[in-house]
Amino acid sequence: MSKSTFWDRAEDVNAGMLDMSDGERLVPMSHYPDRAAHTLWFITAAGTQAVEAVEDGPKPCGYVICDNGKGLYAHLKGSLALSNDRAKLEELWNTIADSWFEGGIDDPDLRLMSLSLTSGEVWITPTSGIRFMFNIAKSQLTGDEPDMGEHFTL
Amino acid sequence: MSKSTFWDRAEDVNAGMLDMSDGERLVPMSHYPDRAAHTLWFITAAGTQAVEAVEDGPKPCGYVICDNGKGLYAHLKGSLALSNDRAKLEELWNTIADSWFEGGIDDPDLRLMSLSLTSGEVWITPTSGIRFMFNIAKSQLTGDEPDMGEHFTL
Repeated sequence: MSKSTFWDRAEDVNAGMLDMSDGERLVPMSHYPDRAAHTLWFITAAGTQAVEAVEDGPKPCGYVICDNGKGLYAHLKGSLALSNDRAKLEELWNTIADSWFEGGIDDPDLRLMSLSLTSGEVWITPTSGIRFMFNIAKSQLTGDEPDMGEHFTL
Repeated sequence: MSKSTFWDRAEDVNAGMLDMSDGERLVPMSHYPDRAAHTLWFITAAGTQAVEAVEDGPKPCGYVICDNGKGLYAHLKGSLALSNDRAKLEELWNTIADSWFEGGIDDPDLRLMSLSLTSGEVWITPTSGIRFMFNIAKSQLTGDEPDMGEHFTL
């Protein structure tokens, strides 16, 4: 149930920060979750730091999702690789991607990357301010700590 | 102007991920921005990994803020330290913090930490879906890339 909540919320959040450099430099990416494959997909362009890093083959990397409003914090690890999966690219294609690539889905600068997840640490917190405030209020009445949600590994 | 936008949005976002381990393990934290001091403050508890890491003195660390809805992505670096600044603690104190500490602001387990920022990379993106969709639409008419906002160092 927890892992399913992770995938549901990862679809809502849309973006995170990719780490190819042991925390030295993290850069924003827009992700497409693929729960069946335990993978995050990225549509990006040739010449970006991430694409250049994996041109010689898959590389280990980290990925951070952190969205207070959507109640999801995750530090994921996996293997990042270029992909030639045309069917997957067609499945992910959308107007936002289309606006970035002059040649559309056949633009020669377009690159599809997959981050195959090997591990992750996930924190799920309440998304509703009302529920959150209720937990805080309750904790003040009962002396319990407020319910800050779930914490698990992926 | 850009740096001021960073501080405005950092106040809206509330939380990020703290990195004390060169990208090995990032953990969620709730931050309190202090633009005059170029510092983020954290109210946390004795015994947490972050507090234990700085008990012998300040340590370099990274901090990631990443919120698609609020249009802020940042990878910040600085020096994390314990603080005994009672006036600052009183200024930051609130009902959420109060619900976490049985003894309130005088709870012996309470720790105040400061992250004094030394550098950072920031991306500011449009917060309004309508404006964002307009930019995408415009780019499809004119052939321009959509306006993805500002990118600067802090």
